[in-house]
Amino acid sequence: MTTSVKTKLVDAFSAKDASASLEATKIPRRDLLADDVEIEILFSGVCHSDLHQVRNDWKGTTYPIVPGHEIVGKVSAVGSEVKNFKVGDIAAVGTMVDSCGTCQNCLDGIESYCLAPATQTYNGHDKHLNCPTYGGYSDSIVVREKFVLSIPEGLDLAGAAPLLCAGITTYSPLKHWKVGKGQKVGVVGLGGLGHLGVKFARALGAHVVLFTTSPSKIEDAKKLGAHEVVLSKNADEMQKHTSTFDFILDCVSADHDLDAYLNLLKRDGTHCIVGAPANPQPVSVFSLITGRRNLAGSGTGGMQETQEMLEFCAQNKIVSEVEMIEMSQVNDSYERLLKQDVKYRFVIDMKKSKK
Amino acid sequence: MTTSVKTKLVDAFSAKDASASLEATKIPRRDLLADDVEIEILFSGVCHSDLHQVRNDWKGTTYPIVPGHEIVGKVSAVGSEVKNFKVGDIAAVGTMVDSCGTCQNCLDGIESYCLAPATQTYNGHDKHLNCPTYGGYSDSIVVREKFVLSIPEGLDLAGAAPLLCAGITTYSPLKHWKVGKGQKVGVVGLGGLGHLGVKFARALGAHVVLFTTSPSKIEDAKKLGAHEVVLSKNADEMQKHTSTFDFILDCVSADHDLDAYLNLLKRDGTHCIVGAPANPQPVSVFSLITGRRNLAGSGTGGMQETQEMLEFCAQNKIVSEVEMIEMSQVNDSYERLLKQDVKYRFVIDMKKSKK
Repeated sequence: MTTSVKTKLVDAFSAKDASASLEATKIPRRDLLADDVEIEILFSGVCHSDLHQVRNDWKGTTYPIVPGHEIVGKVSAVGSEVKNFKVGDIAAVGTMVDSCGTCQNCLDGIESYCLAPATQTYNGHDKHLNCPTYGGYSDSIVVREKFVLSIPEGLDLAGAAPLLCAGITTYSPLKHWKVGKGQKVGVVGLGGLGHLGVKFARALGAHVVLFTTSPSKIEDAKKLGAHEVVLSKNADEMQKHTSTFDFILDCVSADHDLDAYLNLLKRDGTHCIVGAPANPQPVSVFSLITGRRNLAGSGTGGMQETQEMLEFCAQNKIVSEVEMIEMSQVNDSYERLLKQDVKYRFVIDMKKSKK
Repeated sequence: MTTSVKTKLVDAFSAKDASASLEATKIPRRDLLADDVEIEILFSGVCHSDLHQVRNDWKGTTYPIVPGHEIVGKVSAVGSEVKNFKVGDIAAVGTMVDSCGTCQNCLDGIESYCLAPATQTYNGHDKHLNCPTYGGYSDSIVVREKFVLSIPEGLDLAGAAPLLCAGITTYSPLKHWKVGKGQKVGVVGLGGLGHLGVKFARALGAHVVLFTTSPSKIEDAKKLGAHEVVLSKNADEMQKHTSTFDFILDCVSADHDLDAYLNLLKRDGTHCIVGAPANPQPVSVFSLITGRRNLAGSGTGGMQETQEMLEFCAQNKIVSEVEMIEMSQVNDSYERLLKQDVKYRFVIDMKKSKK
């Protein structure tokens, strides 16, 4: 730890290794720098990537780890040069808390693709304290103003938390590939990402088709906005949609047959993956060549686009479907995540968790 | 065979099964319909896909097969309604001889992606004669005017033949993805496709980097127009180019590591495959997500774009590097193709072959 920045200790929940449960701990938060905002955390979403990183599924986890990058809270202090936030404002933090600011992607305002790379909200490297960054499963967080978002009035705060990762991860590619009216758009998988993908694609005016392996999700998918639901295990049903989709948003994090979806795209269509299967997935080159089709991936969005997404949500009354939990339930919630037993995102009520 | 269309028999070379050599035979060509052009074939390029289809590598070959879809010749007769060709004109035929004309891709002028699909020049279905279509390893061919191309003055006719498949297959994606000045563009593999990819990318104004596994190709690649050559087996050399390419044209038909190339793309860059590995290729989703990168495939172009490509070649003095052969050498040329022992395209001199 460098000596130039003073810190205070705050309550948090961390895992000490890949097989450990999350337990109460204390972590350092820096005293405010001039452009820093301190946020007292109200709600913290539970993202599937929290589980992946706590358990070191993607390798590269530094322990102890304090997960959480879907953070909504109340501003409790601001640095001397902060302009857009004041104490008492409702604010939010997503998947990153800093970036280099000088690479082409930062200059283009898409800090999420910073080549440095961007400093992740947790399990990143805190350049001020020379330790890992610690996320939202904690009482408070200190973040540069540039990486703090405003929550527009009218959004349910608990339902808004998952927008900070699951929301922007699905909104950003739909906007980048210009999804809109007159288009046929697929969403693969009805989980934390997919259910928001359906809501966004519908609000953007597309004809929305939800692909799922679970007949039990058909009714829910339609309630959430899907015009059609296709059971992806039914080859005949899939076949009927050959060469008809403009865009498919793939929210599945398990191994699955990409060619089955690529063949559903029109000429020049894009199948964009936002789920993150850990294993390489086989792709037949012919699925791509036969329609000049694209297989793409997309991460989260830049700060400007994330703010735009929050405004879009307020205008279109979109929030995540959530199941509220307290910190004492978080280890159990991870087990339920593995069984896809959540509709559709766990959100931790941090205040209740303190009782 | 239907009785409504009369035919005449012409000399050709066919394989009777997947293990057979090509041998002299007779095939039917229809008497001219009103919009037909008859072409006396002068030169026929030898495409790697001829070999694949003769040997049924892609399955679905109907025997006997007469390969050849890089055809340059002289118009020997025209139907009563043909407007743009007259006897004696130099004309060409590429990979297709018909399409449905009514699907969206045909309406968009990109007949190569016809959903019917397009009628391939050989090993397609000839709707007039109700038999397989027969390609350019023959004395003459009869094709609808719409699918006949003009060869601009000044192009070497033998060197122009490979433009009809290898040329348009590399030109079309470079144009579709708007390759031009100020861009860094990779070409993977220096064979029949790759050497034309290098020439086109250079002529379009890009900074061109050729990737090869063969140190012996470095000098040739530079002569053909590459600004840099990277040995793709050298991980350190590859690493230096991380996140710097706008576009990579992948001309390799063998299994190869796609992630190694995807990681060289800038944000929003595209790796476009025009080679056609027979096996599915594994792709790490993280290679795509980390830079919103695209993996695409591209086939040949539409008729209008193919004609535009030929004009571009005339303006920029681009033809294929060729090794001339006669029909008696074609079986041997297939064996040499498998060893990549050609610089850079075999072209059959059909007139000499008749002697």
